[in-house]
Amino acid sequence: MTMIEQRLREAGFEVPAAQPSVANYVAALVQGDLLFISGQLPFEAGKVRYQGRVGDEVSIEDGKLSARLCALNALGQAKTALGDLDRIKGCVRIGGFVNSGAGFHQQPAVVNGASDLIVAALGDAGRHTRSAVGCSALPMNAATEIEAIFSIK
Amino acid sequence: MTMIEQRLREAGFEVPAAQPSVANYVAALVQGDLLFISGQLPFEAGKVRYQGRVGDEVSIEDGKLSARLCALNALGQAKTALGDLDRIKGCVRIGGFVNSGAGFHQQPAVVNGASDLIVAALGDAGRHTRSAVGCSALPMNAATEIEAIFSIK
Amino acid sequence: MTMIEQRLREAGFEVPAAQPSVANYVAALVQGDLLFISGQLPFEAGKVRYQGRVGDEVSIEDGKLSARLCALNALGQAKTALGDLDRIKGCVRIGGFVNSGAGFHQQPAVVNGASDLIVAALGDAGRHTRSAVGCSALPMNAATEIEAIFSIK
Repeated sequence: MTMIEQRLREAGFEVPAAQPSVANYVAALVQGDLLFISGQLPFEAGKVRYQGRVGDEVSIEDGKLSARLCALNALGQAKTALGDLDRIKGCVRIGGFVNSGAGFHQQPAVVNGASDLIVAALGDAGRHTRSAVGCSALPMNAATEIEAIFSIK
Repeated sequence: MTMIEQRLREAGFEVPAAQPSVANYVAALVQGDLLFISGQLPFEAGKVRYQGRVGDEVSIEDGKLSARLCALNALGQAKTALGDLDRIKGCVRIGGFVNSGAGFHQQPAVVNGASDLIVAALGDAGRHTRSAVGCSALPMNAATEIEAIFSIK
Repeated sequence: MTMIEQRLREAGFEVPAAQPSVANYVAALVQGDLLFISGQLPFEAGKVRYQGRVGDEVSIEDGKLSARLCALNALGQAKTALGDLDRIKGCVRIGGFVNSGAGFHQQPAVVNGASDLIVAALGDAGRHTRSAVGCSALPMNAATEIEAIFSIK
């Protein structure tokens, strides 16, 4: 087990098997010393666990868990792509998309679920830049979608 | 004619003339071994061909054609920027924005129109990472907007 | 004072103090010869100056001022991260998110506020790629959010 996976296990998380992409794109791609990860949904055991608009059908707390699950899936994709999670040096950026009605303005609190998970996994090297925005709709009515760029060695 | 253009022609596509940007930004920019392309709209012959919300005023099938046209325009921008499309090595990432009401959740099916076109043009090297999200509104009421990062030689 | 700050001052702008991030992410991060800046809100003197949907509660002109303020804050973050703004070589990309109801389609005019400010600061080297999209909601009900990637020396 890699150090990153051990750190996650101590925090109570298992890196999941990667959800394969089913169309003409890939879930992860190495470009130079960067690893790009496609937008991840809150899949768990093959289905989308958190669905609906945050602040409406989905509580902020569940929205945060949804973003955390997306980030965990991003690490699952990274593991499959790299073979070994310890090739990750740090996290450069995440894009956080939150399924939001017009009256909901706490996207940062939701995306913190992803940011916290990445820092739990990578420590200080996991501190990344990010954007957090509200989307009128997301694939499969997911509550959140998270994309990421990691630096690798 | 370059190999990429020939491949596209065999698939039934012509690389269009690039739509110039009309403000203080550029449609394409080389940074190291990457080519960044600004968000492209489904322009054809100088006007936006697909307008409205997908799953509402625009069918999924037309949404897919809209995304395909955006991707074709991205290649048009790349051609103008690079002079020669065969300088493209691969596609790193696309961002797919779909004009969507809250009840529409098939953004991936729509963005497949762009992914399929890029793979038709570049073959396996065209398989990219991507995000597909729903936007409450897009410029000129376009049905889709697609941005891209290509790797170049 | 750096050349970039002098240019901005002549255009009537002061580079603001950076708004610190309050969670497990950073406002700016250097990766190789790129500087990534997290999505910036139109903060001024510690509060969000422009709030609401552009084209509805917020005029297009105010939306443009909002985007300009976001871009100015991005330069504030760059200054804090780099120590010296003149380490910036150019701007590679901005992502422009505009708080928009379904009927508003002038996101490019709004995001021009950011593009114009960056070119005022950096001259021709500031001409960047960009995307401009409509979001159903933004953090703290901000009218705009702008993220950026600069090239540095």
